[in-house]
Amino acid sequence: MAKPEQDRLGLPSGQDAKLSRASVGRFSLYLRHLERLRLDGTPTVSSGQLGDALGITDAQVRKDLAYLGNLGQPGIGYPAPELIQALRQRLGVDRTWKVVVVGVGNLARALLRYRGFERQGFRFVALFDAERSKVGQEIDGLKVYGTADMAAVIKEQHAELGVVAVPAPAAQEVTDALVAAGVEGILNFAPTLLRLPPGVSLVSVDLAVQLEQLAFLVHLTQNGGV
Amino acid sequence: MAKPEQDRLGLPSGQDAKLSRASVGRFSLYLRHLERLRLDGTPTVSSGQLGDALGITDAQVRKDLAYLGNLGQPGIGYPAPELIQALRQRLGVDRTWKVVVVGVGNLARALLRYRGFERQGFRFVALFDAERSKVGQEIDGLKVYGTADMAAVIKEQHAELGVVAVPAPAAQEVTDALVAAGVEGILNFAPTLLRLPPGVSLVSVDLAVQLEQLAFLVHLTQNGGV
Repeated sequence: MAKPEQDRLGLPSGQDAKLSRASVGRFSLYLRHLERLRLDGTPTVSSGQLGDALGITDAQVRKDLAYLGNLGQPGIGYPAPELIQALRQRLGVDRTWKVVVVGVGNLARALLRYRGFERQGFRFVALFDAERSKVGQEIDGLKVYGTADMAAVIKEQHAELGVVAVPAPAAQEVTDALVAAGVEGILNFAPTLLRLPPGVSLVSVDLAVQLEQLAFLVHLTQNGGV
Repeated sequence: MAKPEQDRLGLPSGQDAKLSRASVGRFSLYLRHLERLRLDGTPTVSSGQLGDALGITDAQVRKDLAYLGNLGQPGIGYPAPELIQALRQRLGVDRTWKVVVVGVGNLARALLRYRGFERQGFRFVALFDAERSKVGQEIDGLKVYGTADMAAVIKEQHAELGVVAVPAPAAQEVTDALVAAGVEGILNFAPTLLRLPPGVSLVSVDLAVQLEQLAFLVHLTQNGGV
């Protein structure tokens, strides 16, 4: 199984380098916008409309969507249902992904209440926490299991993705347990670097890094560019 | 004031395109690692050590750090205190940024309890919520104000950054109010596209997009690459 290399920010590289993380991010945004349009019964959409909605040029839209094959027709645009299907297929969300969350704190609760995950093909199937007082609770209809049950529950549920929402010192141990139980992708919110075996994918969301990136952009603006 | 253009994912482009978002993200990670090292009293660090810690090549480390000037010495490495100072300066975090949060839900609570923000130059100064029952509460020592008080409190506190942690339908209105009050950078967690005037920076963290990116990487792996 060929495994695309990732840097620590989860960027695909190597053979998939042409398709940048930015493009993949935009695929998600195109998909969201199209799903909204489709609810309105729009049969086709132009690169200009998509560009306007996302605040990017129509040339960039056409370049991104060219990765999906020749779906666009000059003067008509893209057929919305086919484009949605192609985007879902390309992103791998034309199916249901079962997700478990480890660490039932505020972040996990925020995630569980985040709208649209289910519609986008993600189904949370179990929660885990090391704290005895939380085990057995139900949150948004999901049962909290002890970490000792991770292997059994993950295997039984065939969960493929795991969200790490525990404090940094516990993150590597939790990740190792998720991987041992068969999880193939980790979404990490702990502000720490995780070591993963080949074949397991990682996307890290470090909230402090996001805030630093924002400060950097404002700093640039305040100082008239670089 | 030159304003670097951003795409919807907050990527700087144009004059600052050479310094990629990935590099800026790694600056944050270098900084975090160096701050840890410094606590251990390490005077110098090599590109190899930094690369090992972050899981990237030492060539990439040297390339990234070259943006900071000629700090490295062959055979010796980089002096840790100077490198920390240069990274903090480059990221604009060699000062304190005052931050307000709008929307006091689980995500806001998670953010407030996130370790290390203060040490990294971010100080939360006020919380806002539209819900009357939350106004007047204190969370981690911070008072929750009503949204009607945004302009006055933000001006009084000289807050420059605003975190949008409200549901999607309220996000644009909240953002407009933040900008009107003088906020220069928005960290957006609402799964919606925000319109911002020139001169205001945006970093968006769409948790569904992050999960989709992870699914995409796993999907690639399961299918033996592209």
